[in-house]
Amino acid sequence: MKASVLQAKFEQIRSNKVFELFVITVIILSALLVGAKTYNQPLINEITRYMDWFISLFFLTEITIRFMAEENKRRFFHSFWNWFDTLIVLVSLVPAENADMAVIARLVRVFRVLRMISFIPELRLLLVSLVKALPQLGYVMLLLFIIFYIYAAIGSTLFAEVNATLWGNISISLLTLFRVMTFEDWTDVMYETMAVYPLSWIFYLTFIFLSAFAFLNMVIGIVVNVMEQESAKVKAAQDLANHEPTMKDLMHEIHALRKDIDNLKKQ
Amino acid sequence: MKASVLQAKFEQIRSNKVFELFVITVIILSALLVGAKTYNQPLINEITRYMDWFISLFFLTEITIRFMAEENKRRFFHSFWNWFDTLIVLVSLVPAENADMAVIARLVRVFRVLRMISFIPELRLLLVSLVKALPQLGYVMLLLFIIFYIYAAIGSTLFAEVNATLWGNISISLLTLFRVMTFEDWTDVMYETMAVYPLSWIFYLTFIFLSAFAFLNMVIGIVVNVMEQESAKVKAAQDLANHEPTMKDLMHEIHALRKDIDNLKKQ
Amino acid sequence: MKASVLQAKFEQIRSNKVFELFVITVIILSALLVGAKTYNQPLINEITRYMDWFISLFFLTEITIRFMAEENKRRFFHSFWNWFDTLIVLVSLVPAENADMAVIARLVRVFRVLRMISFIPELRLLLVSLVKALPQLGYVMLLLFIIFYIYAAIGSTLFAEVNATLWGNISISLLTLFRVMTFEDWTDVMYETMAVYPLSWIFYLTFIFLSAFAFLNMVIGIVVNVMEQESAKVKAAQDLANHEPTMKDLMHEIHALRKDIDNLKKQ
Amino acid sequence: MKASVLQAKFEQIRSNKVFELFVITVIILSALLVGAKTYNQPLINEITRYMDWFISLFFLTEITIRFMAEENKRRFFHSFWNWFDTLIVLVSLVPAENADMAVIARLVRVFRVLRMISFIPELRLLLVSLVKALPQLGYVMLLLFIIFYIYAAIGSTLFAEVNATLWGNISISLLTLFRVMTFEDWTDVMYETMAVYPLSWIFYLTFIFLSAFAFLNMVIGIVVNVMEQESAKVKAAQDLANHEPTMKDLMHEIHALRKDIDNLKKQ
Repeated sequence: MKASVLQAKFEQIRSNKVFELFVITVIILSALLVGAKTYNQPLINEITRYMDWFISLFFLTEITIRFMAEENKRRFFHSFWNWFDTLIVLVSLVPAENADMAVIARLVRVFRVLRMISFIPELRLLLVSLVKALPQLGYVMLLLFIIFYIYAAIGSTLFAEVNATLWGNISISLLTLFRVMTFEDWTDVMYETMAVYPLSWIFYLTFIFLSAFAFLNMVIGIVVNVMEQESAKVKAAQDLANHEPTMKDLMHEIHALRKDIDNLKKQ
Repeated sequence: MKASVLQAKFEQIRSNKVFELFVITVIILSALLVGAKTYNQPLINEITRYMDWFISLFFLTEITIRFMAEENKRRFFHSFWNWFDTLIVLVSLVPAENADMAVIARLVRVFRVLRMISFIPELRLLLVSLVKALPQLGYVMLLLFIIFYIYAAIGSTLFAEVNATLWGNISISLLTLFRVMTFEDWTDVMYETMAVYPLSWIFYLTFIFLSAFAFLNMVIGIVVNVMEQESAKVKAAQDLANHEPTMKDLMHEIHALRKDIDNLKKQ
Repeated sequence: MKASVLQAKFEQIRSNKVFELFVITVIILSALLVGAKTYNQPLINEITRYMDWFISLFFLTEITIRFMAEENKRRFFHSFWNWFDTLIVLVSLVPAENADMAVIARLVRVFRVLRMISFIPELRLLLVSLVKALPQLGYVMLLLFIIFYIYAAIGSTLFAEVNATLWGNISISLLTLFRVMTFEDWTDVMYETMAVYPLSWIFYLTFIFLSAFAFLNMVIGIVVNVMEQESAKVKAAQDLANHEPTMKDLMHEIHALRKDIDNLKKQ
Repeated sequence: MKASVLQAKFEQIRSNKVFELFVITVIILSALLVGAKTYNQPLINEITRYMDWFISLFFLTEITIRFMAEENKRRFFHSFWNWFDTLIVLVSLVPAENADMAVIARLVRVFRVLRMISFIPELRLLLVSLVKALPQLGYVMLLLFIIFYIYAAIGSTLFAEVNATLWGNISISLLTLFRVMTFEDWTDVMYETMAVYPLSWIFYLTFIFLSAFAFLNMVIGIVVNVMEQESAKVKAAQDLANHEPTMKDLMHEIHALRKDIDNLKKQ
């Protein structure tokens, strides 16, 4: 009985508007802290050290309250976002004072900013919809990767001797091709190889065309997808709002009419 | 009585086609003046000094006429565009002769060109529709900012010692990341950090993918929005033009029919 | 009578398939000639000089035949494409031998390639539809220009002393801003002015956001436009093909039914 | 009879799930091999030499099995993908040991990665749909080429003396213009010619506008196309699923009703 009283209290704290406001304030504070630390000023460092401990403790408390407030403890771990928050909180308990770990501890604290996403439901929804769109692009991305891989293999076979920094092996070549795809000084890369292989412009132009074409297809895929979902949503909402009869309803009515007339005849 | 006569006169001036034409001419003239001043030729400077006074006075007169022409003086300040015009006119009264203020005075006069927007109704509509589209993008922009912020924090933690000009603190890092997002010499930035951290290409590639993905989502959001509004407008216009009966109307008619037949039976 | 016989003959030549094929061959030949001349080889120059005369004469003949074949001479000049062809042919009669005119004559001959567009109906249609889409973008383009103009005025006022080559006066500034809009080494431009005005990044970032936003709006405007036209076309074609009855037709039928039943009652 | 028994056996092997898995493993292995070779390490080279022989033999066996499994040998060559696979397998039999052929042999082996496309049906479909979209863009691409050709001819006529590396002849100019279209250091190209021809910015700006406009049109063409196909597919699927009656069906029913009523009258 005592447990359930405690739990009710935790539940009460969790759903308290003031508490919620406080949580978001601390999240924003921790984000600002992350930014402040990059200025590397002695005064700021002194302040942030104490702030950091407070934020760590607060986050730990907050997650404990949420865990306690949950009636069914198992259900707590069914939610992806609870795992997400717990991981971020636990990981940022790495002590920042230790010199060896200092950089890692600072990096790990950066991810606290991600709690902004888990806290705001709209951002959670947005992220989920973004992630859901990814697998549908699977095959186009595979095709894009095959195009990259073939060109990288050709590039590192032919151009490795021209410029080993750009074409030394297949992984460096993949990076160079990504650079070419973003049009980043791609002509410098091309003119260099054209000095040795005058026809190598064919390599770059076909690559740009193929990768742009595949990429365009990927973008269109996303657009078409989003639009269909959107228009389906809109249509469903309209139908619900209008009580608009469907073709089927009409057909139904007309059939009923016919029966009535048939009955009339039989009279 | 005298006041209302005066007001009617002002109203008459304001709606006069010749006056309107004159206003737009002066607006264009003030835009040309703004451009002419940048050539910094003694002769032009001499001319523009006098022109400037004339335009300032004219704009002041014009806004006074519009204010006087308004029957309900309060309603004048209910319009955003009246505030907009008044502000631009008042602010450009800063004397340009004073040496200390010269640059500010010149800058402030540049904004007179904005009166083009407040004067042409189509441009006003366009701007309003652009501004209205912004809040709907709020959450995607927040997500984009969180991505930027996290990468900027990581960047300035790891790369500050590699190149303090690019990664010195979080605000410089944010600017550098915006540069990377526009693909502006981003490989130069990457190769520099890869010399120290060979795996830092992961940082850039994931950032480009995530930010491009969030940005793409923002663009699609706008497109879907605009298209829906557009198609809703088109549909409404069509329905109005065609007096096209709806499914509901049809259903209504068929029900009426059925009642008629029922009446027939009862006869 | 003689005239009409001649005209019929010309008409016959013009619509001759072999003649048409010959015309397109000469157009392609003239395009190749334009390309060949840029190699500046003595042998090619010798050949092209004679070819050039032949093509000039042929084009002149062809346009004369088309003019003669036209029954109503006035209608010939009602077509934009006839004016277009005549102008290109006449202008390319400028003698290429004269040393002073050599470059102009060569440039003018380049435009013969445009006859490809006037000769292929599909390309003519495409160009007409492209040109028709332009005026609908008028106001967005005006807004974009106002944005450019204001930023160029601010830029040349503040940054002229930093780098006169980029910001010397308003026209140079407009070109620099176009460069910034294409992301072409825009950070070099920015870092230079940031050395003097550390806050000038605001200038560049707001400009990029505003111009990108206006540009995006322009593109969406075109897309929405094209799609609506396309879907209207598709719908019209479908309706024609299906003899699909409209809601109105249905309503009409049901009304007729009702009248029949009313008649029944009166019996 | 013996033949048909053998064929049945081959057919059995081909459709065996384990065999299919093995084929895809070997394809991925051959892709990894292509990548591994680019690292040029003695140990890897030793291993890959033997692997290469094994893969060549396996692919030859696999294609033979597929050929044998085919009942109608002629139908085997009716499939584009069989030709595709056979060509890749045959061509990669070029001996890699011969020093003169070493580079060619390695390049040819790269194309084995393409077998990934022919093996995965979804990728085949994707590629086919991409290729099918191309001819519909024919005229826009022709227009784009004409724009490029005219500007390249003008460019090489005027700017060949300014910078022969960029504008020497029409083919180099076409490459330079493609570079300008991708915004790759295009201002460097422009500033160079502006030093001699101060008005040459007109050349670049009109080119960028025209080519961007034509390109945008091409992209919109693809998008509209894909969307129409998609929405047609969706509509067809819905109609099939819903057994939704069409307007025609309704009309039909109402006509039947009318006849019934007519019959009623005649009674």
